Amino acid sequence: MLTYCMRKRLFLLSREPLKAAVSPQQRRCESGGSVLDLQHFVSSGGTGRRSTYGPLGTELKRNVLQQWWTAVVSLQPQVFGISTPCSSTERRTLKTEDGEALGEQLKLFQHDQSLRTSLLQGALEQFVPSLELLNKKLPFGLAEIGLCYQPEPERAGTSGCFSEVTKASLVWFCSFRTSSQWLDYWARQRLQWWRKFALGPSDFSVCDVLSEELEEGASRGVKVLYQFPSGSETLETLWSFGDTKLLKTHHGSRAKLQCREGRTSVVPHVLSVSANMDKGVLAFLYNSLQPVQKVDSKQRLHQRKVLKLHPTLAPVKVALDMGRGSTSELRQVCEGLLQEFLEAGIYSWPGYLDSTYSSMQSLHAKYDEMGVLFTVLITDITLENGLLMVRNRNTTVKETMHISEIKQFLLKYISAAENI
Amino acid sequence: MLTYCMRKRLFLLSREPLKAAVSPQQRRCESGGSVLDLQHFVSSGGTGRRSTYGPLGTELKRNVLQQWWTAVVSLQPQVFGISTPCSSTERRTLKTEDGEALGEQLKLFQHDQSLRTSLLQGALEQFVPSLELLNKKLPFGLAEIGLCYQPEPERAGTSGCFSEVTKASLVWFCSFRTSSQWLDYWARQRLQWWRKFALGPSDFSVCDVLSEELEEGASRGVKVLYQFPSGSETLETLWSFGDTKLLKTHHGSRAKLQCREGRTSVVPHVLSVSANMDKGVLAFLYNSLQPVQKVDSKQRLHQRKVLKLHPTLAPVKVALDMGRGSTSELRQVCEGLLQEFLEAGIYSWPGYLDSTYSSMQSLHAKYDEMGVLFTVLITDITLENGLLMVRNRNTTVKETMHISEIKQFLLKYISAAENI
Repeated sequence: MLTYCMRKRLFLLSREPLKAAVSPQQRRCESGGSVLDLQHFVSSGGTGRRSTYGPLGTELKRNVLQQWWTAVVSLQPQVFGISTPCSSTERRTLKTEDGEALGEQLKLFQHDQSLRTSLLQGALEQFVPSLELLNKKLPFGLAEIGLCYQPEPERAGTSGCFSEVTKASLVWFCSFRTSSQWLDYWARQRLQWWRKFALGPSDFSVCDVLSEELEEGASRGVKVLYQFPSGSETLETLWSFGDTKLLKTHHGSRAKLQCREGRTSVVPHVLSVSANMDKGVLAFLYNSLQPVQKVDSKQRLHQRKVLKLHPTLAPVKVALDMGRGSTSELRQVCEGLLQEFLEAGIYSWPGYLDSTYSSMQSLHAKYDEMGVLFTVLITDITLENGLLMVRNRNTTVKETMHISEIKQFLLKYISAAENI
Repeated sequence: MLTYCMRKRLFLLSREPLKAAVSPQQRRCESGGSVLDLQHFVSSGGTGRRSTYGPLGTELKRNVLQQWWTAVVSLQPQVFGISTPCSSTERRTLKTEDGEALGEQLKLFQHDQSLRTSLLQGALEQFVPSLELLNKKLPFGLAEIGLCYQPEPERAGTSGCFSEVTKASLVWFCSFRTSSQWLDYWARQRLQWWRKFALGPSDFSVCDVLSEELEEGASRGVKVLYQFPSGSETLETLWSFGDTKLLKTHHGSRAKLQCREGRTSVVPHVLSVSANMDKGVLAFLYNSLQPVQKVDSKQRLHQRKVLKLHPTLAPVKVALDMGRGSTSELRQVCEGLLQEFLEAGIYSWPGYLDSTYSSMQSLHAKYDEMGVLFTVLITDITLENGLLMVRNRNTTVKETMHISEIKQFLLKYISAAENI
């Protein structure tokens, strides 16, 4: 669980420097210079323990969830997406002392609506309806991304408070014989996934859960951890549950749970793979923050931070700005180019709309903190011969490019990064 | 509100024929033949009024939400995504009779957690944090897709029940002078969007809200309606709210709400555009269901239903099956092709994994009911010369194609349909 203090710093005091994000490693060290403004990523909604995402954070989270879905569902022919309700109504039937149900007759129902804390139960309930579609063939998985509620520890004067978290869950059904291998397979897959998008992959790790810390009903467990500056925290947990949870959900009727594996018929064992995606987004933010030092011509030390988010995750792929020249003509070029980018699915930042003056240096500093991959500058030269300036966030190299080539260049860069 | 009876039919009795989907129009008429099995789209989670989506429904809903986001956020440079909490904690401060607050001193807080019914309030709260990022320039919009809760009408023995609904909301901030034009603009845009994906566009319509039915604080309202078989229902509402809701949210402090429009400074007026996306998914399902009649060589009438979902929305783009021939070799070809499709982002159905025999006719009938765009058949001919058979859902025409061309053919077909 992300410590309250850390959350508070990020969410409530969103304009405070992200000092906590500085990792113990050398490549990232505390800087007294420019500070990261996370307010457009995550900010306070006035409640503190419920995360509100600003425009950049919303896009980042969408990208993270999309990548999870692609890796776990779209690329896996045996995993199917489902979507189940957040809340459930339990119908309690009153009973007399000798056990006879009075409920139906007396219409004395009591409805209790409860909010889910994980996505496991929904998948267990959807197991039987899914069987027919999948021809009862093992192994297969049911995946879901959805909101869950976590009860908050009670404090003075409060009761029944809960916090919201977006979870991404895969529930994998396989034979008893193969369940341990599958747990290893998914743990490996998931660690690879987290590391694929990391600037510092070694901050992500896996460990086995000790037998005394196993969740109820689990025979084995694995955790994916992230090394936050304040300590190691769990991003994802994998449990091997056997068949008891499935049997319990379907009232022990083995007959309707039978699946085929090869020529034999079995009641499948259940693996649960569940990640806290809000914490995952924070991990990627922390992980990709890199301080950069530069000594200028007057021997002054400049320190700033660059949010080196993976190209696939970076919310803004390109920022469009204009330099000197005829404002109305440059603006027209920017608008045309912006439209072209948006239609190609390249999330772009219309920096040219900002009419307040800022130097190129401070503009680059701002975009680097936003994690913007490329900055495109349109000037009067562009009007003359079609050439524009492209600056790369990671290398800070500025390249001249023809306006007709820039879209393809960006698309290629992003798709190349995806396929590494 | 979708009538309970209709929902019940769809959700609880998911294996019942979708008779309700038969519209009064000629192009769709009641059929006594094959029935649509919606169980893999929407099904019962045991609670009745909370929708559970099966694998196909989950994919369909994802596609609908993705298209909404593309149209309203990604393609609009002045709309920004946000993500706000579902629940809020209101802190009530106890007051003495003369109005003096006791709360802070006595630590007599009372926490009340409430669940949101719309996404408007979240956007109003995020207005001020967003201003800086957007340089206080009007017009702009904040968009969100999220879960909302709707209180259920109380029935005998129940209390405090609520149902879940996924809403998609755009809150648009503009000057008073332009707000009426913007309302017209967005109403037109939204109707166009619904109709773009419809088989029968005329079932979607807009109407002005009568002044006595306006929501509190609204000066004008427009609704987007869908003509369900059971009657017309609202999919989306657009309200023009003036500046009162914004002022109220920020405790009347006009100074921090000031935005620039041209050279003048104004407190923006608020438009709310909010759609019930669960009802939207149902509307698309109803709208695209088309009965087909065929007379065979023996003069027998065959009736069946085809789910002619728009190519962009159809959950399964292609089903892969194998015909006669060496099973293991054909299977290998299928697996290779499936992988190729999945990596290109083409959602594919691994029909070849189903080892129970079914005739091509019943297979086509099943895929047509699932809305599968194309069926690809791999046979021993494919092993010989690389040719496979492709069947088009809409035309039922079967074409021979080389295995090396099929991926590009599918990608072109889908992207062409998107750009119409």
